[in-house]
This record gives sequence, structure tokens and C-alpha cells, in this order.
Amino acid sequence: MTYCVGLMLKEGMVFMSDTRTNAGVDNISTFRKMFAWDVPGDRSITIMTAGNLATTQAVISLLEERSKAVEERNPSLLKAESMFQVATLVGDTLKEVISDNAEEGQRADSGFNATILVGGQIKGGAHRLFMIYPEGNFIEASADTPFFQIGETKYGRPILVRAFDPEMSFDDAVKLLLVSFDSTIKANLSVDLPLDVRVYKTDSYECEHAFRIEANDPYYLDISDGWGGALKEAFGRLPDFDLNKT
Amino acid sequence: MTYCVGLMLKEGMVFMSDTRTNAGVDNISTFRKMFAWDVPGDRSITIMTAGNLATTQAVISLLEERSKAVEERNPSLLKAESMFQVATLVGDTLKEVISDNAEEGQRADSGFNATILVGGQIKGGAHRLFMIYPEGNFIEASADTPFFQIGETKYGRPILVRAFDPEMSFDDAVKLLLVSFDSTIKANLSVDLPLDVRVYKTDSYECEHAFRIEANDPYYLDISDGWGGALKEAFGRLPDFDLNKT
Repeated sequence: MTYCVGLMLKEGMVFMSDTRTNAGVDNISTFRKMFAWDVPGDRSITIMTAGNLATTQAVISLLEERSKAVEERNPSLLKAESMFQVATLVGDTLKEVISDNAEEGQRADSGFNATILVGGQIKGGAHRLFMIYPEGNFIEASADTPFFQIGETKYGRPILVRAFDPEMSFDDAVKLLLVSFDSTIKANLSVDLPLDVRVYKTDSYECEHAFRIEANDPYYLDISDGWGGALKEAFGRLPDFDLNKT
Repeated sequence: MTYCVGLMLKEGMVFMSDTRTNAGVDNISTFRKMFAWDVPGDRSITIMTAGNLATTQAVISLLEERSKAVEERNPSLLKAESMFQVATLVGDTLKEVISDNAEEGQRADSGFNATILVGGQIKGGAHRLFMIYPEGNFIEASADTPFFQIGETKYGRPILVRAFDPEMSFDDAVKLLLVSFDSTIKANLSVDLPLDVRVYKTDSYECEHAFRIEANDPYYLDISDGWGGALKEAFGRLPDFDLNKT
């Protein structure tokens, strides 16, 4: 499995993805699931993938190849005029890869499906975040639903639902995502560190902060160790239940 | 969907189940998923069900019918000599119902599967908790894994993993389950109040506390409202992240 989250903040966007892939519990590996296309001053695009690894790698390779020689190839992420066009392009590529695999050759035990988050900003437009389905269509984050999760989304959702606030700072947003990822990692073998992070400030047209959090990262360990205690304290402060009153 | 949890404590056992069933989001109903067979002084057995409602209702009806005229009918929950025999009987009944449906008649779009938690104590044995699979086989809770969840388990798991302690009191255990259920209810439409609760004290051979928590229960609302704030406070007390140090 996989866990990736994209947050829309007032200040900009924060993306985080894990790196664990597995084909059964006896075959786990580390693969990057976050990819970026940056043209400083013009655009910054971040893509995160969940699902069949062969599918997502093929999609990324096709998008990559088509953006290398921009003049010759079309369509390209580097020539798209809006984030909507970017999402359409990624959706079309995803659909193309899945149907190529599904229609021909051997039948697979598992599906070829994948889901993709695409976020960023292109000069002349707003910063936008899309979730792209295996069918190639997509939905966009809004003020009512300012974040998307893909992959193993359930364990880490309650803390996002309770504590996420689009007004929060980048620092707080990264911290919140680490708590959400830690809750998932503690409960599910199919999500694990290292974690990839990208932070995009609105109207900057470049990604100022792109980094990886390794398994032995001291701040991550502080959060992971501290959250158990903090939760127990929070639990202790809630009013007590009294069985004898039932 | 459904959410049910059974906890093994040093003091005894606590069971909680929701009551929402759905066949699509446009067809939701309230059904009890917790059932009990109590013979004060001899045995106290609690069963919670998740999965296809027709299957689980048939299983409960069969178990019920077979225990009504104990002298005539065998096997019966009221005659089983150990909790292991109870689990075997429930497993066999579940398997029988599923295979009856699966082998004959029309094919259904959805599966006939169900999963069942069975816990309790029979005089002469220890209190035990089992999770029964659709295939009729089962696993038992132990010191290493002292609780089982069935149904929509993921949202409510992180708080159980972090805060559950077999040494905790019944009062704290009910409070913890309410937090776990509230996290699930907040994130997923397919789980909802009222919640059924049963508390069994080891070697009491009767269930002293069996009650229902309604949607407007003031204590539940306190927990639900308070937990958001408590989580935010806990989050605030964790060390801050600083992007500029990455």
C-alpha cells in the first residue's frame, strides 16, 4: 500500500508521501512516490502516486519523456497552460497506461489501478490540488474539502479531520502530517519511512522546501514517541465515565 | 458497515458495537449487532456481528432457536461446556449459513460474508475472546493482542493501539471505546449511534452492566466535543517543526 496526503493551506500547499511498496508482506521495497516538475518563475507541479507500481512508474516515465524535449513533444507538463490542463494530461496518461495493460497480454491477479494526486501552480492561475481516478477523471480540492489522501487513508484521517486548519503555518502542517503518518505507520505494515515532503508557497512559482525524512530522523522520533504520551494525557483530561450511573 | 470492539481486561471484558447498517448510502437502518446469552451463576456469552445482515441475523436466529428448548436441541450455546465449544458452534453455524446461501439460488452482487466476535465465560473455565471468520475457523485474543475489532476498524485503531492497557478500569475502557467509536463515526457514514455496551466482570458469571448509548447521550456528546479540543492541545504540546532547519 501507500499513504500520500496533499494539503491546501492559505499560505500554499504541503505534500507528503511514504516510500513503502509491497507485493505481499514477504516482498517489500522502497520506492519514491513523489515526483516534481519545477520551472522556477513559471510553474511548480507535484505529483504523488498510489496503487500498482508498474502503472504509476509507467505514467511518470511517460510524463517525464514527454516533457524532456518540450519543443518536439506534445502534450507536456511543461507546456500545459493551466493546472486543469495538467490534471487532464495526467488523467489521460493514467487511463492510457491502465487500458494498455488491461486489454492485452496476461491477466494479472491484482488490478492495474492507481490513483494520483496532482498539485501546484502555473503562472497566470491559482494553486490547485486534484485527485485523479484510474478512469482518468478527477476532482479538485476546495474550501470545504481542503485536503486529499490516497492509499491507506483511514488510520491517519481522524487527526486530520480534527486538527487540520487551512490557516495553519507550513511548520504546523508538516508536524500534523507527521502525526497522521505516524498513526498509520504504527497500525499498518504497508506504510513506512522514509517520507518525502514538498512545501509550495503560493505565487512563489518554485518549491523552496523539498526534503526527505529518514527513519532515524530525530524530530520524527520525538513526534512518534511524544504522541503516545500526549494522546494518553489528552484522554486523561476528558471527563471520566462512571459505570454505576448507567 | 459496522464497528464492534471486544476488549480483554485484567478485570474482565468490555464489548461495544454500533447499530448502523447500510445497503448503499441511500438505504441506512438501525439494527442491533450485539447479542447475549446469560445464565446467571453459570455463563455469560456476548456475540457481536459484522458483515452481511441477512447472514448474521440467520446465524443469531439459529443459535437462538437451538438454545430455546435446551433439552431437545443440540448443540446449544446454553449447553456448551467451554468457550472453545461456543466458538466452534458459532463458527459452524456461520459457515453453514454462508454456504447455504452461496451454493443455491440467485447470485448476489455483494458477498454473504460476515465476521463475528464471541466473548464470555462459562463456569469452570477462563473468560475468553474469539474472532470468527466466514470460513468458520477462529482466533483467540491473548496477552499480546488483548482486543479484537471487526467492521470498519481502521479509523478507531490508532487510539486503541496507543492508549489501551489491559490494566485499565472498566470506566476507562468504556471511555476509550467511546473515543475510538467517535473517531470512526466522525470519519465514516457507515458507523453510527446508538452504541450497545456490555461489561463482564471475570468470575461473576453474569453481566452486571448492559446498556445503550443514544445519539443524544450527554456523556457521549462531552467526549465527542472534548476530544477535538484535547487532540489539538496534545498536538500543540508536541515539539514544533521548523522548515528553515531542513
